Amino acid sequence: MKRKRSLAAGSGELRVLPLCGLPEIRRGQDLEALLVRAAARQGIQFEHGDVLVLAQKAVSKAEGRTVDLRSVTPSPLAREWAPRVAQDPRLIEVVLRESRRVIRMTERALIVETRHGFVCANAGVDRSNVPGKHAVTCLPDNPDASARHIAAALRRRTGVIVPVIISDTFGRPWRLGLVNVAIGAAGLRVLHDLRGTPDARGHLLRATILAVADELAAAAGLAMGKREDVPAVIVRGFSYRAAHESASRLLRPPEEDMFR
Amino acid sequence: MKRKRSLAAGSGELRVLPLCGLPEIRRGQDLEALLVRAAARQGIQFEHGDVLVLAQKAVSKAEGRTVDLRSVTPSPLAREWAPRVAQDPRLIEVVLRESRRVIRMTERALIVETRHGFVCANAGVDRSNVPGKHAVTCLPDNPDASARHIAAALRRRTGVIVPVIISDTFGRPWRLGLVNVAIGAAGLRVLHDLRGTPDARGHLLRATILAVADELAAAAGLAMGKREDVPAVIVRGFSYRAAHESASRLLRPPEEDMFR
Repeated sequence: MKRKRSLAAGSGELRVLPLCGLPEIRRGQDLEALLVRAAARQGIQFEHGDVLVLAQKAVSKAEGRTVDLRSVTPSPLAREWAPRVAQDPRLIEVVLRESRRVIRMTERALIVETRHGFVCANAGVDRSNVPGKHAVTCLPDNPDASARHIAAALRRRTGVIVPVIISDTFGRPWRLGLVNVAIGAAGLRVLHDLRGTPDARGHLLRATILAVADELAAAAGLAMGKREDVPAVIVRGFSYRAAHESASRLLRPPEEDMFR
Repeated sequence: MKRKRSLAAGSGELRVLPLCGLPEIRRGQDLEALLVRAAARQGIQFEHGDVLVLAQKAVSKAEGRTVDLRSVTPSPLAREWAPRVAQDPRLIEVVLRESRRVIRMTERALIVETRHGFVCANAGVDRSNVPGKHAVTCLPDNPDASARHIAAALRRRTGVIVPVIISDTFGRPWRLGLVNVAIGAAGLRVLHDLRGTPDARGHLLRATILAVADELAAAAGLAMGKREDVPAVIVRGFSYRAAHESASRLLRPPEEDMFR
């Protein structure tokens, strides 16, 4: 019954539901319990057809992926580069530890390829929305595993299968501004491959692979804002395709990437 | 009153409402009338707080930005390049006419900077969802002007101020798949600049400029799909900032772009 109501939704309407009022998240905390409680307080129950989008920072905090900069000794390289990107040498040290290689250096950040393969500024190491003057967060160690873990725990707790996306705001070439993208995923196809299927006029779609996980993250990003404490958003009504697929599939293989 | 209901929405929920059942759009057609009628058939009225996202193809068709390839004589350059990107030489000729410069050549497309400054595959020239075997669409001549025109016409027709985004699906470096982005805009800030504002913990946000117009386009992209005939989507409940700003502001100045 539930299935029918939420997935059909007739009109194809999507709803983007921010979960508000979560407490400051600490290492080892039961994130799923906090999410279910926050949802319940807003009168929301997880339903079949929901996708949960979680801000990276909440996951990183729960996993203890914070670093106290006072415990970091910057290498000579970090000390040399830090002033060129107007950053704390200890933060640059953490960035380098999280990186596979440096791609470019801007006036404010290192653009790196992270250990996971993401290309982003400062390897996702960030001090905003982190309590304490000296603390920074790193991206989760394995965001796809984190997403799988959270999806499994949510299922145990609620009985509902809800795909999970872990998101972060990344910049991009050619266009200004940050957009929220998927860095971890579980339970859904992250790419919808429409190649070889006919469009509404009968032409075959040649190059159409939609990055739906990134569009889901972006939609959630509208509800997350940046100053607000909205680390979690439910997207309801999207006809996702259930699958064991991870966000790492969104990474363009370096050898096919003409812009690295 | 309306204002209160739609913008407050208490919980911060967003709704993404696809407008379905529009007829095939022809040159010179009154797009706004079609949109208002399609909305009404679904029981939707435009409200204060709505943002309208329109697929580029609908706008291009209404503006007559289609080309019959039989009328195109490919230049020697187009003839030379076409087989290298597995395309029709006449299509490549149209691509070159729409381009300011060619950035890369892939196995399937030219990555170009369009006359508008967008970096995308084949200058947005496309044959999917275009009726007729030989027809292709080009991007609108001036998508920001198109958006302004449509917003003004909608306002005359409905009495409501509704910002308009014109969107297209673009690929990007580093990540696979296409995402819907804003190529034209009217009536709202396309970038939300949060620099210098404190986050929830009191830290100043340093590098946080959110490309909200692209996130709005992406959210709409989820409802548009690609095969479906959903050329228009209302995003309801997003606290946009009203402004005279155009999507060209999203273009990274080439001299600041390290990946061109």
